[in-house]
Amino acid sequence: MNLILLSGGSGQRLWPLSNNIRSKQFVPLLRGENGEYESMVQRVYRQITREDPNARIVVATAKRQVSTILNQLGDKVDVCVEPCRRDTFPAIALACSYLADVRGVGPEEPVVVCPVDPYVDDSYFAAVHRLAELAGADDAANLTLMGVEPTYPSAKYGYIIPETADAVSRVTAFKEKPDEQTAAEYIAKGALWNCGVFAFKLKYLLQAAHARMDFKGFADLQQNYDKQKKISFDYAVVEQEPDIRAARFAGEWKDVGSWNTFAEVMADPAIGKVLMDDTCRDTNVVNQLNIPIICMGCQNMVIAASSDGILVSDKQRSSHIKPFVEQVEGEARFAEKSWGSFTVLDVQPEATTIRIVLNEGHRLSYHSHEHRDEVWTIVTGTGRTVIDGTVRRVHPGDVVTMPAGAKHTLIADTALQVVEVQIGEEINVADKTKFELNL
Amino acid sequence: MNLILLSGGSGQRLWPLSNNIRSKQFVPLLRGENGEYESMVQRVYRQITREDPNARIVVATAKRQVSTILNQLGDKVDVCVEPCRRDTFPAIALACSYLADVRGVGPEEPVVVCPVDPYVDDSYFAAVHRLAELAGADDAANLTLMGVEPTYPSAKYGYIIPETADAVSRVTAFKEKPDEQTAAEYIAKGALWNCGVFAFKLKYLLQAAHARMDFKGFADLQQNYDKQKKISFDYAVVEQEPDIRAARFAGEWKDVGSWNTFAEVMADPAIGKVLMDDTCRDTNVVNQLNIPIICMGCQNMVIAASSDGILVSDKQRSSHIKPFVEQVEGEARFAEKSWGSFTVLDVQPEATTIRIVLNEGHRLSYHSHEHRDEVWTIVTGTGRTVIDGTVRRVHPGDVVTMPAGAKHTLIADTALQVVEVQIGEEINVADKTKFELNL
Repeated sequence: MNLILLSGGSGQRLWPLSNNIRSKQFVPLLRGENGEYESMVQRVYRQITREDPNARIVVATAKRQVSTILNQLGDKVDVCVEPCRRDTFPAIALACSYLADVRGVGPEEPVVVCPVDPYVDDSYFAAVHRLAELAGADDAANLTLMGVEPTYPSAKYGYIIPETADAVSRVTAFKEKPDEQTAAEYIAKGALWNCGVFAFKLKYLLQAAHARMDFKGFADLQQNYDKQKKISFDYAVVEQEPDIRAARFAGEWKDVGSWNTFAEVMADPAIGKVLMDDTCRDTNVVNQLNIPIICMGCQNMVIAASSDGILVSDKQRSSHIKPFVEQVEGEARFAEKSWGSFTVLDVQPEATTIRIVLNEGHRLSYHSHEHRDEVWTIVTGTGRTVIDGTVRRVHPGDVVTMPAGAKHTLIADTALQVVEVQIGEEINVADKTKFELNL
Repeated sequence: MNLILLSGGSGQRLWPLSNNIRSKQFVPLLRGENGEYESMVQRVYRQITREDPNARIVVATAKRQVSTILNQLGDKVDVCVEPCRRDTFPAIALACSYLADVRGVGPEEPVVVCPVDPYVDDSYFAAVHRLAELAGADDAANLTLMGVEPTYPSAKYGYIIPETADAVSRVTAFKEKPDEQTAAEYIAKGALWNCGVFAFKLKYLLQAAHARMDFKGFADLQQNYDKQKKISFDYAVVEQEPDIRAARFAGEWKDVGSWNTFAEVMADPAIGKVLMDDTCRDTNVVNQLNIPIICMGCQNMVIAASSDGILVSDKQRSSHIKPFVEQVEGEARFAEKSWGSFTVLDVQPEATTIRIVLNEGHRLSYHSHEHRDEVWTIVTGTGRTVIDGTVRRVHPGDVVTMPAGAKHTLIADTALQVVEVQIGEEINVADKTKFELNL
């Protein structure tokens, strides 16, 4: 099957383990198959390929997520990068053009669009697979949706009202997130949760896209993406389309959108350097710092620590985190990058200290800073630096100094660990000019 | 008056803000007179000198606390350093010998011994002052104690049983920490809390000391301190002495021995980078890291973070912290030193990164390491390094490399801030050889 995984998402929901570089779907706290931790996106990828080893997966995402996706999934998936934010309809149109023009998917082939981060069991992707088959059938509706059988009257989800209780039924209406009482009334009439999964023939979406947007094909759309209007798939397609069917799904489906729900699916109640006394109850602790956390008498709490900050919250309250994170948000203090990772160790008025890990065979961009000097101390590994065109080999203990204005890069011949000290009165990430480097 | 302040104490009670270098009495979280934060020892010093501007104060303490005491009190107090741990009787004998031999205190003069960390109002030190006068009178008992009028039947304190309810009374018995019911019975009979404050004429204690220990005077006792037996003042003196009186004190007295009690006297519910939502209740948060803590829905908790670790505890449970701290305790990751301070920023298998602040006019010892290379990056200030005898001026941005074996020091001509990277497979604080340096 052809699958477009929509990977958007905020870095605030699972703060401080998610940030503006690492959205919640990349936080590696679930239990993987071999006992190691995996992220939601890794879990979903594993489940999809178990259901359909030949699935053609395109992750539709923003530029800032690309490094993390490649780090977590390798090059096993295609990544379709939105040059800028234009809501779901242009994003899906871009991914569909990619499937058609780059991957050669035929116009009659079905395509399923699915959020990248549902927490589900394997039967869910069997249902996704069937959805693709339904959408690809000759007598298919223009749009086929997955509807989840509700287990309680939730006010957090939108509802699909099907015509009948059959496994597949015409849809008579969509309802926005209702209050709990209204939700209960919908459910009594057979309503289903809208889990954001829908399928169509490729030609259907491309026609809709060409009707609304002026573009020739994938390359052209990508190039002129910033000229497109922001519009959601619901508004552009679903609300205009009379021919929609819903397929029921009765298995487990969880939208782990906050610490409260995420705690239910975490691999272990305590991850990292954590000590809990025996009076702690229903408490989840994740510690990504390398200092210990001691918890005593904690009841029904979630505690999380990273280089970005520390959260100590009652589980119920944790779903209200967003405005607080907005108050404290600054530059991300840790990030996976295409070349490795960085962690900010210390920020002082005139100095910032960072630990950089550069994976074997990778290198930093060749760049300079106008307003800060930098010093690298090589801690482990071997590699080369280039400073204003001069190449030098470096080993553990070596020190490289880069005054403001000096063009510099670091190349990892084996995996490198480096401590970087930035010195200056105006240190900020925007102070960076990149250059070509031909070695 | 002559006052011996006993400054011992564990670094575990207020972990992670106290550690094996900074005991709880040095944690600066109380509200000082001018709005700034002060420690228990600073508060006590301020109260004593307000009561008696001419008080002669000797702090009896261990070597590891000397830098912190001097940093917090300056040279306004005498410090009598116990060369090793020998319990309270040898420590008091050493301080009394110091008063007699170094400070010229006469044999008939009264001396008061007092813990360094009671949380009290000013009337307490007025009572201490009266205690000195009582002990110095011609008809004084050999030993005069302060007894605090109990406000509840506590199982945490020892009790003094006085003969009468008079302001000053003979003591008929001492009782160890009882259970609450027994405590209530004691209190019904007029018992007082033993707050560890007692006074005597200097000659009394020196006679007792010479009777039990073989020494000539202060210098001799200090030199042979390690040969003395460990013995408590209670066992060596109080239990043998029939002539003891107690003076009643009816004011506020608090033994802030755990986070639970310390939280009651903290200057602010939130200190440092802290955000609490409006559903937090009766919660104290102290953050000494420079990343934010967000607290939501916390009820009756204490949360504290430093470079040593993070505590998240129900207030009641926090008094049971000790065994957990023992499990996580390693090298202290931050400390005030006589020359400034250090903070460990990062510990990796083969590298440790530290921020060093060196106060103006101070210098590090001249030393070398056998098993690690070190790199200093000067961040702010100016000074000089000496590496294997060679002096060099340093400024911000300068880098100094010290291979294993190289003798090195750093001298602060103005206050220096330095990032130190230690590199090696066996990094530990014991790997340090000191040398003489004559500039």
